[in-house]
Amino acid sequence: MERLLPFRFDEEEGVFWLLDQRRLPLEEVWVPVRTAREMAEAIRAMVVRGAPAIGVSAAFGMVLAHLRGESPKEADALLRQSRPTAVNLFHALDRLRPHWGDLEGSLREAKALWREVEETERAIGLHGAKVLRGQVLTHCNTGPLATGGYGTALGAILEAHRKGRVNHVWVDETRPYLQGARLTAFELKKAGVPATLVADNMAGFLMQRGLVDAVIVGVDRMALNGDFANKIGTYTLAVLAHHHGIPFYAALPLSSVDPRLESGEGIPIEERSPEEVLELKGVRLAPEGFPAYHPAFDVTPHRYLTGIVTEKGVLYPPFDEALRHALGLS
Amino acid sequence: MERLLPFRFDEEEGVFWLLDQRRLPLEEVWVPVRTAREMAEAIRAMVVRGAPAIGVSAAFGMVLAHLRGESPKEADALLRQSRPTAVNLFHALDRLRPHWGDLEGSLREAKALWREVEETERAIGLHGAKVLRGQVLTHCNTGPLATGGYGTALGAILEAHRKGRVNHVWVDETRPYLQGARLTAFELKKAGVPATLVADNMAGFLMQRGLVDAVIVGVDRMALNGDFANKIGTYTLAVLAHHHGIPFYAALPLSSVDPRLESGEGIPIEERSPEEVLELKGVRLAPEGFPAYHPAFDVTPHRYLTGIVTEKGVLYPPFDEALRHALGLS
Repeated sequence: MERLLPFRFDEEEGVFWLLDQRRLPLEEVWVPVRTAREMAEAIRAMVVRGAPAIGVSAAFGMVLAHLRGESPKEADALLRQSRPTAVNLFHALDRLRPHWGDLEGSLREAKALWREVEETERAIGLHGAKVLRGQVLTHCNTGPLATGGYGTALGAILEAHRKGRVNHVWVDETRPYLQGARLTAFELKKAGVPATLVADNMAGFLMQRGLVDAVIVGVDRMALNGDFANKIGTYTLAVLAHHHGIPFYAALPLSSVDPRLESGEGIPIEERSPEEVLELKGVRLAPEGFPAYHPAFDVTPHRYLTGIVTEKGVLYPPFDEALRHALGLS
Repeated sequence: MERLLPFRFDEEEGVFWLLDQRRLPLEEVWVPVRTAREMAEAIRAMVVRGAPAIGVSAAFGMVLAHLRGESPKEADALLRQSRPTAVNLFHALDRLRPHWGDLEGSLREAKALWREVEETERAIGLHGAKVLRGQVLTHCNTGPLATGGYGTALGAILEAHRKGRVNHVWVDETRPYLQGARLTAFELKKAGVPATLVADNMAGFLMQRGLVDAVIVGVDRMALNGDFANKIGTYTLAVLAHHHGIPFYAALPLSSVDPRLESGEGIPIEERSPEEVLELKGVRLAPEGFPAYHPAFDVTPHRYLTGIVTEKGVLYPPFDEALRHALGLS
């Protein structure tokens, strides 16, 4: 089976290739990136997206700066401005900083970062695979394309399918951005996993009919008690799973837990442009001037979670204790 | 306030005008219909849609047949074939049958049918308005355009807004067909009701934040115990409302209760083409060849209902008794 990656590094030519995610799933176009400036532009334009994938790309952006003789300071500044909300971006650039002016050191650090991200995701996949079976429903995109090459929630699904535990995946299209329809569907197709696309409002119907054995989603930010923010629609799925007695899991690297947050109440909800609800690829869906609301995330209280899948294993309630222990805080 | 109607009859010219619902909400185009043949074609092509609206249109199709000298028998057959699943179509044509060959009688009967549909909807609106307040969420399209000119669930919302009881409406876009984004939004805008479009997966978030005071939906078919089929996504809303302790109502004319069905288990779920999930106005959303599932309806068990809004008042549990009584079956 072909392994799907959001990028690849051609060390001989010194070119970092990005799979252009804006053109998926209809076209697979690889974009060569030769300078830090080009990398910053590619991140800004969302050629590559997903926090872990952005982090690795930015690290290699610094490698390209050294290869092409760009000023490390300017390269760092350009990359930091590319997608200022992605925390992984800053972590990656902080790690590369001690190696400014040192091509060998930069390359070694960027590769180490990528390897660590991969190892973390690989462990999440292996642990998560153990709790999934039968038909699994997922939301948004948490696969190789968004991450370091293995994925979180979708990584666990792919691993569970490899092991014969999961035989079918329901893919929420994930309005308004359609990450499910565009990216998760693409990844599952590539991986040869039997899967079916549904509109988000069909989840209840599928559960009512006994067609969902587990739900697993990713996490944007988790508080110390297990409350977590994720793509809008996650909370609706949590309530539905709870009501039907279906196991509901969140998968994340422990780096996505924010140790400053005791609960989900402190997580701000990003509101995005109403235009993303009102239009789809330039096609107007609603009457001119009609208002729309677009909260991009929602917060799911920890009580809806069956388990939290991390690189250190699956955590069970009480989550505050389990998370503190996993983070080495207690 | 301008009253929105899906059609109007120009008696002087003998022309039945249809508001072309395929072109809403971006364009308001009125299509003249002069013959029964043209009416059958307009119904088939979904220029007019919604079971009550189709019934009235078909009745006037028979009037046009008499005006233009078409054979009543052929006109009846053509109209019956136009949208063979809409029960109201057959009821309307059955009522016109005794008046074949009689222009005056046909016109009288068609007008009487329209008036009865209007009166039923007007009563539903008045009863429904009493139980709604604050912010109301609705799904799909149940307004004037789909009906005889007043609407069912949306009719109740419009009436409650007129009375100052409802101050804001959340409109589910209603994937995959977007009846909410296209038609309900159009109707609310016309009526000057403050309203906001949301993606279907945002309902849980809105309820969690206390932004929904009641949910009201329409009904495609109801069993004698109150179980009912409606647009896919209704069951998900019912579970969410139940979980958050939010009143959940269904509105329908009593003619939509199927007295042959004891419960919702007997209601077949129409599966529509997966293409409707995979494509939107010709724009491909998912990878080529990816499977999709498109159940067009779901069945909501009566236990999720707070009340059933009918032309004879709002019915409360036990629904089987209340419905039998309202239908004169007990």
